[in-house]
Amino acid sequence: MEFRFEVKARDAAGRIGKLTVNGKSIETPAIMPVINPKQLIVPPKELKKMGFGIVITNSYIIYRTPELREKALEAGIHRLLDYDGIIEVDSGSFQLMRYGEVGITNREIIEFQERIGVDIGTFLDVPTPPDAPREKAEEDMRITLERAKEAEEIKSIVMNATVQGSTYPDLRTYMARKLSEMNFEVHPIGAVVPLMEGYRYKDLVDVVIASKLGLRPDRPVHLFGAGHPMIFALAVAMGIDLFDSASYALYAKDDRYLTPEGTKRLDELEYFPCSCPVCSRYTPQELREMPREKRTRLLALHNLWVIREELNRVKQAIKEGDLWRLVDERARSHPKLYSAYKRLLKYRDYLEKNEPVTKASALFKVSEESLRWPIVYRAKERAKRVSQKFPEKVSHPIFGEIPKYLSLTYPFAQSEGEEDFMIEKPKKGEARRYVMAVAEYQFGEGAGEAFKDSFVELSRKTGMPRQIKVKGRHLATFRAEDGLLTLGIEGAKRLHEVLPFPRMRVVVNSDAEPFAKRGKNVFAKFVVDADENIRPYDEVLVVNERDELLATGQTILNGEELKVFQSGLAVKVRRGVEK
Amino acid sequence: MEFRFEVKARDAAGRIGKLTVNGKSIETPAIMPVINPKQLIVPPKELKKMGFGIVITNSYIIYRTPELREKALEAGIHRLLDYDGIIEVDSGSFQLMRYGEVGITNREIIEFQERIGVDIGTFLDVPTPPDAPREKAEEDMRITLERAKEAEEIKSIVMNATVQGSTYPDLRTYMARKLSEMNFEVHPIGAVVPLMEGYRYKDLVDVVIASKLGLRPDRPVHLFGAGHPMIFALAVAMGIDLFDSASYALYAKDDRYLTPEGTKRLDELEYFPCSCPVCSRYTPQELREMPREKRTRLLALHNLWVIREELNRVKQAIKEGDLWRLVDERARSHPKLYSAYKRLLKYRDYLEKNEPVTKASALFKVSEESLRWPIVYRAKERAKRVSQKFPEKVSHPIFGEIPKYLSLTYPFAQSEGEEDFMIEKPKKGEARRYVMAVAEYQFGEGAGEAFKDSFVELSRKTGMPRQIKVKGRHLATFRAEDGLLTLGIEGAKRLHEVLPFPRMRVVVNSDAEPFAKRGKNVFAKFVVDADENIRPYDEVLVVNERDELLATGQTILNGEELKVFQSGLAVKVRRGVEK
Repeated sequence: MEFRFEVKARDAAGRIGKLTVNGKSIETPAIMPVINPKQLIVPPKELKKMGFGIVITNSYIIYRTPELREKALEAGIHRLLDYDGIIEVDSGSFQLMRYGEVGITNREIIEFQERIGVDIGTFLDVPTPPDAPREKAEEDMRITLERAKEAEEIKSIVMNATVQGSTYPDLRTYMARKLSEMNFEVHPIGAVVPLMEGYRYKDLVDVVIASKLGLRPDRPVHLFGAGHPMIFALAVAMGIDLFDSASYALYAKDDRYLTPEGTKRLDELEYFPCSCPVCSRYTPQELREMPREKRTRLLALHNLWVIREELNRVKQAIKEGDLWRLVDERARSHPKLYSAYKRLLKYRDYLEKNEPVTKASALFKVSEESLRWPIVYRAKERAKRVSQKFPEKVSHPIFGEIPKYLSLTYPFAQSEGEEDFMIEKPKKGEARRYVMAVAEYQFGEGAGEAFKDSFVELSRKTGMPRQIKVKGRHLATFRAEDGLLTLGIEGAKRLHEVLPFPRMRVVVNSDAEPFAKRGKNVFAKFVVDADENIRPYDEVLVVNERDELLATGQTILNGEELKVFQSGLAVKVRRGVEK
Repeated sequence: MEFRFEVKARDAAGRIGKLTVNGKSIETPAIMPVINPKQLIVPPKELKKMGFGIVITNSYIIYRTPELREKALEAGIHRLLDYDGIIEVDSGSFQLMRYGEVGITNREIIEFQERIGVDIGTFLDVPTPPDAPREKAEEDMRITLERAKEAEEIKSIVMNATVQGSTYPDLRTYMARKLSEMNFEVHPIGAVVPLMEGYRYKDLVDVVIASKLGLRPDRPVHLFGAGHPMIFALAVAMGIDLFDSASYALYAKDDRYLTPEGTKRLDELEYFPCSCPVCSRYTPQELREMPREKRTRLLALHNLWVIREELNRVKQAIKEGDLWRLVDERARSHPKLYSAYKRLLKYRDYLEKNEPVTKASALFKVSEESLRWPIVYRAKERAKRVSQKFPEKVSHPIFGEIPKYLSLTYPFAQSEGEEDFMIEKPKKGEARRYVMAVAEYQFGEGAGEAFKDSFVELSRKTGMPRQIKVKGRHLATFRAEDGLLTLGIEGAKRLHEVLPFPRMRVVVNSDAEPFAKRGKNVFAKFVVDADENIRPYDEVLVVNERDELLATGQTILNGEELKVFQSGLAVKVRRGVEK
C-alpha cells in the first residue's frame, strides 16, 4: 500500500494537491465518475482518455452479483472494469441508508475489497440522513466508530473513513476528530446527497465546515455523492478535494443536461451553452431526434466534459488566486447557492486561517459580499493594528481609511473596485516608514523594529521601494507585485531577534538542519513545530529546536498544517544562514 | 435590396430576432467575425460552418489595396472572400478616428460598396472619441448627418447609419432620433472601442441607453467593435442585436485567450476552462510549444467557439426568461462590469418598458441587485396599486408585504429566494377575489370589474383557480404556470367594455380586420395604433379603428413597438369574435 497527499497550490480554503495511491497519481480537486459495473454507458477506458484518472464503483454491488464477483476475484477489479487508473469503491453504506439493511458484515466487505485489489476501500459506515433524531445520529456514530476500529485493525489497503453525524455540527466535528486520530488515509463526508437533492446548500456548508474543523488538514476530503458542477467552486473553497459523479450518467438517461449554473432538460434547450465535442457538433434538436441509446451516451459525454471543464476552471482560479471571485459568480446560479455562499462567509476564522497572504491576482470587488471575503477581513484587522503606530491615513475606495504606508501593499494596492485607487509614490524620506509599516502588517506587532535603521532604495523607473539595506547589506526586498517583503538572510536575522519565539518560526528537527542552513527546501516531515499564526505563502523563519535561525523562505502551509503534514514541501527556502 | 427584421422572443430589453438581407437570414443576437481581407486566419467558409452567418470586412481596405479592389470589382466581394453568407462592410470611419483622415469621399465609398455587392454597407460617418470637446462632437455630428443625407439619396443597398455623439448622452439621443427618421436599416453605435479598451463599461451603458432611447425600436442595433464575450449578456440586455469581433484573431496573434469572464494570457493558463474542439484536444502547455502559426490559428478557433458559446448562452437565457440572472452572474467577472450593471439598473423606465410581463422561469433572487430588476420594480408598483382595492396582505420573503390575492401570480408565486414562500390555496369563496385582483394587476385600474360576477372553477387536483365563467360561458383562464389571465372572447368583450380606449388596445386597419375576427394572427404592418402601456407578452384587445373588438391574443411587442414595427408578428391571436 502506497499513499501520499501533497499540497501544490491553494486559494480560499481550497487546494490543488497531488494524490498518489499505489504508484498512480492524480491532481486534486478531482472527480471520480461513478461506474455502474452492470452498465457501462461510457467505458472506463474512455474516461481515462478524457482525463479522469480515478473512478469509483460499488464493491457491494460487485459482491452481490455472482458473475461480477467471480470475475473480480479471479482477474481483479482493474481487469473487471478494464481501467488502469485509481479505483475507489464504496461499501454499500449508501444502500444501507436507502434500504435499511445490506446483509453483509463490515469485515466481509473490507476483506472482499482487498481481495479484488481496489486502490481505495471504504468500510461499512452507517450513514445518518439529515434531520435524524439526535439519539439515532449518536447511535449510528457509535456503531460506525466501532466498525472504524475493526477496519483499522484488519485493513491493508488505503481506506476511506467517512464522517457522519447527520445535521448536527458538533457530532460531525467530534466524529471527524475521532477518525482523524485513527489510521485512515481519506475522509469522505457522508450522507449529504439528500441535502443537495433538496437544494439545502446552506446546511451543506454547515456540515462540511463542521467536519473540516475536526479533520486533520493533511488528508484529502471527499464530498460523497457530490458531482454537480454548480457546487464545485463553493465546495473546493471550503476545502473539498474529491468529488464523485453518478449524475453524468443518471441525468443523461433522464435527458438532463448539466451546466455549471444548473441542470437543464434537453427538451427546454434551443441552444447548447457549451462547445464540447458533443455540443459543437450537434444541435439540441438533432440530439432529441436520435435513438435513445446514442442520445444517452452523448449526453453522458457532454456531462463529463462540463464537469471536467468546471474543475479546470476552479483549478485555474486557485492558481490565479481568483477562487473567491469564481465562487461569487457561481453563487448567482441559484438563490440557495447564494444563501450558502453568504453562510460560508460567516465562518470567518476557519477561512482566515486558510487564506493566502498574497495572490497572483488583484482583489476584485464584484459584489457586496466581496467585502466579507477573508482577505478583506484580515487586511482590515491588520491595518487597524498597524495604524496605531502609523496613524497617517489615505482614503481607499474599497477599504475606506487605511494607513498611508500600507498603500503600496496587497490587497490595498492590488485591488480593483468600482472607483480607481490612485497610488502615490513614497515622498522623499518616507520610504523607510513604508517598509516598517509593511513589516508590522506582514510579520506582526514589533516587526518594524527590524528595519528602523534601514535604507530603502527606490526604483528609478517607478519610484517604488525596492531593496532594503543597512550599511550596504541586503535585509529584504520590497516586492513589486504585492508590496510585501521578501527577507534576505540579514533581514531574517534581525526579525528573529526582534520577534520572540514562536513568532513566524517553522521549527525543524536535526535531520533537516544542515540542508536548511545550506538553503535547501524544507519538507513537511522534518517540521516539529510552527507558529500557529503562520498563514499560507507567508515568509517564515526556519529554526532548529534551540531556536537558532537556519534559513528563511516561503511556506505553502499554515501554522497548524505545518505541524501535521508529513508529505510535500513545507518551506521553499530562499536563503540559508550558510549561503 | 431585401431587408427584414422581426422579433421572435425577448427578455430584459434584449431580443432574439430574425434578420433577413438579400435572401439570407440569420438569427440575432449575432456576431460578425471581422475578416481582414489581407490575412485570413480562419477562412470565411470555415466560419460559416461554425455557424457564423454574417461577417464584416473593411471596404476601405479593399478599396485601397489594388489587387483586392480589382478582384472585388470583377468577381464581387462574396467571391473575393469565398463566403456566401451576409457580408457587411465598414467604411474607413474607424481609420478616420485613429488616423484623422482617409482620402476618400463618402460618395466614393458608398458607390464602391454597391459595386462590389456588399449586403450591408456603411457610409463614412465621423466618429468622435469619448470625452471629446462638445463643440467637436457637435461639429462631427453635423458632418455625419450631412453625409447620412447624401447616403440616403444615393444608396441602393441595405445600409448602416452609425450613431455618434461621443460621451454626450443628449447628442447620442438626438443623433439616434435624426437617423431613425431617415431611410436606413441598421444602426450601429459607434466610437465605443476606447470605452471598452479602458474598461469604462459604466460609460458604455450610458452611451448605449442614450442611443437606444433615440432609436426606432424596429431596427437592429450593432455595438460597433464589441466582440468580447464578457459583455454579451449585459449588451444584449440593453437591447443590442449585433456584435463584431476582430479580437478573436488579434488576441490570438498576441497569445491571448478569451473567456466569458475576461481575457487570459496563454502563458498564465495551466488548465483550459473550456471544452471546445481545441481545448478538449490540447493542453495549454501543448499549445505554447506549437509553431506560432498553428498556435494562432488554434487560439483564434477557440476564441470563436467561446464567442459562439456565450451567444448561445445568452439566447437560451432569453428563451427561458433568465437573462437578468445571467447578467448578474457575468457582472461578477470584473469590478467595472459590476459597476456597469448597477448603472444599467438605474435606467428603470427604459428597462420596465421592455420587460416581459411573464417568463418561462421563476424569478431568482441571487444578489442584492436582483431586488432592483425591472420585474421586481414593476411588481411592487402594481401591487401597491392593487392593494388599495384589495388590502389583505401576506408576507413574502422577497417582496415583503404583498396583496394576498396576488400570491398565486408571477413573479410572487414563481420566485425563489433564500427562504421559501409558502403558497396557500384560495379559501372557499375567495377565488373570485384572486381573479379580480389579478385582473387589476395585469390589465390595470378597473379591470377587476369585468370579473365581478364570475364563477371560478378550482382545480380538483391542486385547489388552484382554473376556468373563469359567467353562467356557464368562459371568460378567461387562470394560467397554472404564472397565475395570470388568458382571455376568452367573452372575457375580452367585458374587459373592452370596462376599460376605456386606448387601454390594452392594439388597433389594426381594415385589411387585417376580417382575418383577426376569424382568429388569425395580426402582423405588425397592419397595426395603426396601440396603448403605450402594453408590455411584451401582454394579453391584449385587438380592435379596429372604430374601437370595435375583433380578437384577443398575446403580443410580443410593447405599445411603442406595436406602433413602429412593420414586419413580423404583432399579436398571436387566441380567439377572434367570429370564432
